Amino acid sequence: MKVPRDNARYKGVFPVVPSIFDKSGNLDLDGQHRCLDFMIDCGCHGLCILANFSEQFLLSDNEREILTKDILEYVAGRVPVIVTTTHFSTKICAERSQQAEQFGASMVMIMPPYHGATLRVSGEQIFEFYKAISDAISIPIMIQDAPMSGTFLSVPLLVRMAKELENISYFKIETPQAANKLRQLIAEGGKYIEGPFDGEEGITLLSDLRAGAKGAMTGGGYVDGIRQVFDPFMEGNLEEAKNAYMRWLPLINLENRQGSFATAKILMKEGGIIHHDGLRAPLPPVSAEIRSEILEIAKQLDVLALRWAR
Amino acid sequence: MKVPRDNARYKGVFPVVPSIFDKSGNLDLDGQHRCLDFMIDCGCHGLCILANFSEQFLLSDNEREILTKDILEYVAGRVPVIVTTTHFSTKICAERSQQAEQFGASMVMIMPPYHGATLRVSGEQIFEFYKAISDAISIPIMIQDAPMSGTFLSVPLLVRMAKELENISYFKIETPQAANKLRQLIAEGGKYIEGPFDGEEGITLLSDLRAGAKGAMTGGGYVDGIRQVFDPFMEGNLEEAKNAYMRWLPLINLENRQGSFATAKILMKEGGIIHHDGLRAPLPPVSAEIRSEILEIAKQLDVLALRWAR
Repeated sequence: MKVPRDNARYKGVFPVVPSIFDKSGNLDLDGQHRCLDFMIDCGCHGLCILANFSEQFLLSDNEREILTKDILEYVAGRVPVIVTTTHFSTKICAERSQQAEQFGASMVMIMPPYHGATLRVSGEQIFEFYKAISDAISIPIMIQDAPMSGTFLSVPLLVRMAKELENISYFKIETPQAANKLRQLIAEGGKYIEGPFDGEEGITLLSDLRAGAKGAMTGGGYVDGIRQVFDPFMEGNLEEAKNAYMRWLPLINLENRQGSFATAKILMKEGGIIHHDGLRAPLPPVSAEIRSEILEIAKQLDVLALRWAR
Repeated sequence: MKVPRDNARYKGVFPVVPSIFDKSGNLDLDGQHRCLDFMIDCGCHGLCILANFSEQFLLSDNEREILTKDILEYVAGRVPVIVTTTHFSTKICAERSQQAEQFGASMVMIMPPYHGATLRVSGEQIFEFYKAISDAISIPIMIQDAPMSGTFLSVPLLVRMAKELENISYFKIETPQAANKLRQLIAEGGKYIEGPFDGEEGITLLSDLRAGAKGAMTGGGYVDGIRQVFDPFMEGNLEEAKNAYMRWLPLINLENRQGSFATAKILMKEGGIIHHDGLRAPLPPVSAEIRSEILEIAKQLDVLALRWAR
């Protein structure tokens, strides 16, 4: 019988670390290190690597391993690191998760099994999948409930896993009406929902915090701004949180709806933190117009990314 | 300016080779070899490995490489082998394709870039993706036009790629109304459509042959049956082809709609060719009832798979 914890091990703003490539599209580990130093200085409570905003679907298995090992060594415990280890195969996902733990990950984040437009598995198989991963490791698992997987995860299924599976304790809810789902999850799962998180760059952050989210997995470019919303909310100062959210929402919106994966890299390149902000092909580059809009609003908000390396 | 060929390099029945696992879910190369010997004896004109029916989405990069190298060595030119090298990243797909060519692949098969339920790229990015792969290798590419990718490939885009990209010459059409699309593709692309193929286990084989398909990529369990349709059709004996198609359609239908990935392995295991017919988790096992239905009709049709190893 699983015993829930009284205190969550991890809370706060855990942005996604973009994967940094050089102009040829190869891994740029020097750039990656500067990106990590910046993100830590920017005030993140933790980091998440190899997520969708890290272009994880554009990496080889070998590159995933290199990044996992290198980033965990470089961060060296300064903040906890969540490693995304999603794979359709239970066996491969378990092996990836074991390796991440061995390299020093504090948590793994895993979407339910999916492939392409058409291949999905049922609720029972999803339970068995997460059970096998939970049994294979001894660090917490964050279930990533995202539209990318094309898989509906019901609140009863999530609660059942939280109650029955030792390491299923964190939930990143980024489906439509995330606040409703977070509220229902917390109501039905109680203490077993150790870490209710939201995602999606923080586009619904205020509603999600009001629904009980204790963490946010945002983009990596302006944690300084996200903290301006998160911190007052957690201190009980709703008015200040609301004002900050209204101030930062235009930039969050540009990232969520326009710049997507590239937004954090555009800010870091403009600020001289990294040399290249390109996405891997076949993802198209961000248009000059959207790039300008992002930088315009970022300057107005005085984001740290544009000042940190100067 | 690309010059189309007068004669297609590859025609005929090119079944998908299932990936054989042992009872723990590890690669079973001995079983894989027996599977290959059987499939070649069964009368295939060529083979395709690492396709969706090979559970390609359940393999690690390393396992893909092991299977590619091992299978090409073991087949040793007895029949041409198509290697599926689909990956979302242009760079990784190009590298996989170069490696497949180096190991001795006759062709690579590639779906357009996709990931999960939501990530797709536009027509221009699809063109650039295939262009980069075509430029990276010197063997033909089969574009796999399948619902799994969730990407609509228009006939004009396919024809443009056939005419402009040196190695884009084969087309496996397995979208709804495949016969219509094949007919239109051949009408608009002429000699540039060197290899119009169908797929989907042969469920629409007769209509597709009548539409001009010169090849079929079917399941791996009963090429002896598929040849009973294919050969008379190619010899101009439509009546015999129709009768054979009517005879084999119940088994094809069971594979296409019920047994799916597992069908070929079930037949091979029942026939003593391989020891384990399990799919990798989280794919559920085929139910006892469906397994019985498959074997019942296969016995009635006297499939070679049930006799070959006896």
